Amino acid sequence: MIFLEHLHFLDFAGVAVFAATGALAASRKQLDIVGFIFLAAITGIGGGTLRDLILGKLPVFWVQQPAFIAVCVVIAVGIFFSAHLVESRYRLLLWLDAIGLASYCVMGTMIGLEYGISPFAAIVTGIMTATFGGIFRDVIAGEKSVLLSDEIYISAALLGASSFALLMSFQVDKTIAITIGFILAFTLRAAALLFGWTTPRYKSRKGREVK
Amino acid sequence: MIFLEHLHFLDFAGVAVFAATGALAASRKQLDIVGFIFLAAITGIGGGTLRDLILGKLPVFWVQQPAFIAVCVVIAVGIFFSAHLVESRYRLLLWLDAIGLASYCVMGTMIGLEYGISPFAAIVTGIMTATFGGIFRDVIAGEKSVLLSDEIYISAALLGASSFALLMSFQVDKTIAITIGFILAFTLRAAALLFGWTTPRYKSRKGREVK
Amino acid sequence: MIFLEHLHFLDFAGVAVFAATGALAASRKQLDIVGFIFLAAITGIGGGTLRDLILGKLPVFWVQQPAFIAVCVVIAVGIFFSAHLVESRYRLLLWLDAIGLASYCVMGTMIGLEYGISPFAAIVTGIMTATFGGIFRDVIAGEKSVLLSDEIYISAALLGASSFALLMSFQVDKTIAITIGFILAFTLRAAALLFGWTTPRYKSRKGREVK
Repeated sequence: MIFLEHLHFLDFAGVAVFAATGALAASRKQLDIVGFIFLAAITGIGGGTLRDLILGKLPVFWVQQPAFIAVCVVIAVGIFFSAHLVESRYRLLLWLDAIGLASYCVMGTMIGLEYGISPFAAIVTGIMTATFGGIFRDVIAGEKSVLLSDEIYISAALLGASSFALLMSFQVDKTIAITIGFILAFTLRAAALLFGWTTPRYKSRKGREVK
Repeated sequence: MIFLEHLHFLDFAGVAVFAATGALAASRKQLDIVGFIFLAAITGIGGGTLRDLILGKLPVFWVQQPAFIAVCVVIAVGIFFSAHLVESRYRLLLWLDAIGLASYCVMGTMIGLEYGISPFAAIVTGIMTATFGGIFRDVIAGEKSVLLSDEIYISAALLGASSFALLMSFQVDKTIAITIGFILAFTLRAAALLFGWTTPRYKSRKGREVK
Repeated sequence: MIFLEHLHFLDFAGVAVFAATGALAASRKQLDIVGFIFLAAITGIGGGTLRDLILGKLPVFWVQQPAFIAVCVVIAVGIFFSAHLVESRYRLLLWLDAIGLASYCVMGTMIGLEYGISPFAAIVTGIMTATFGGIFRDVIAGEKSVLLSDEIYISAALLGASSFALLMSFQVDKTIAITIGFILAFTLRAAALLFGWTTPRYKSRKGREVK
């Protein structure tokens, strides 16, 4: 019970931090308060919505638990009136976003496994849960997608999702597997934020023009 | 029966006006006739498709009633050959679009409620039905999203959807609730078009740089 | 049996060539290897995922057969280390892409018909299967959508899907219908590539300004 509540806390925290990044994108576009709520909701619930669609777990989670939407509304309204404070703490937000990424890649994978799909498909589902909210946010706000940035991002989700799935396949205790998956994903993302870690990029070589 | 036909008329009218805006976006991009049909269909049926996916009402509505696709084809072909006339009547189109927005936010909410979801989730579903067709159109056509424009748009959908849901929760007659929801949404959007009404925007304050 | 294996070969070949175009888009954006895999997977499985969602055939195909994801990973890794060779063979890739387009428009339509939907809706589903992977790729990579290019593309999918559906409605043998649909779509796309065939575009006329 306590464990489940802990998970729900993580879930709401994940929605909240992603919603906050959506609201901050809205502040950069100088939208109105409804625009803040709209972008916050799409970012907060987008990844989980896609996960539920792909699994066929319908209606999607926020239809069954509208409190997730309420969290997005509260966060969006709060940031509309305080973004001048929060945005000066953008560094803090990146860290909250790292928490969201780390919890979502593990929980998306866990929900896939609980739904009975293969570990490999569950890892893909976990990565999607962690990344697609941000993709929707960037596409709708007309900003460069997080996927195209130099910072390690998807790799951290891959590490968290695959380590969790691997541990579960070895019958490791679920709480331990969640904790390790979360810590690995968060640590990799944190290292990228602290030390500017990047992964090797594809570089065009001589004699070829890159469009 | 007459009431239901009236609703279906509203539904087809909504698809038709949104399809028309998609075809006009295609004319601005100077696409071929198949491109007109493609963008018209995505705009016309996109919001309702997302609604059905989220509710788990599958296959989606236009698979069960392909007449909705036929409406998009007819509208797209008509506009391909007459956009030089219609586009000079762009103002008229904005008014038709306002009719589509107003009817869709109410009908999306109604379908959600009929499907048994909570009023709060139904309002979210209604707003999505009314707005996502235009978002798909703008993203695929590479135009600035309607969400980022100065005009009141999503707020009108919010007003129509929430007033309809509120009236339904007070057991008001469905036809009256639909009519009031439609009128409120349409009037707010119409006022925005007539008088340039906007909502208060987030403004950055001193000492902070907005990207 | 042999026929089914042949179909599966076509299916995997379609995923593989679309995944290759996604990985090449990643090389143009100079992403890391995880970015290559991500864009390759979205492009390879995106159209089929949307098809399954719309039909309500859930979980989607790659959850049930993760080998499709594995194909995308292999292709993406291969191209990450060899894109300097492959991209100099971009013309070859366009031809492989034409094979993917031609096989997908027919197979998407076939899956729709097998699922019991109307021929008209099945044609729409087939066109979406063939085109949406590329749309997702272009939107996420921030490139101009294939829909907006001058080359014949969607029209080829329309030709393949509708000719296949027409032949099936006349009780033509399925293998023959598939072959003809494939050849028609591929030939039209090939002609566009070889001879620069385009379809008549909408042109603005006097006295009207095109945005």
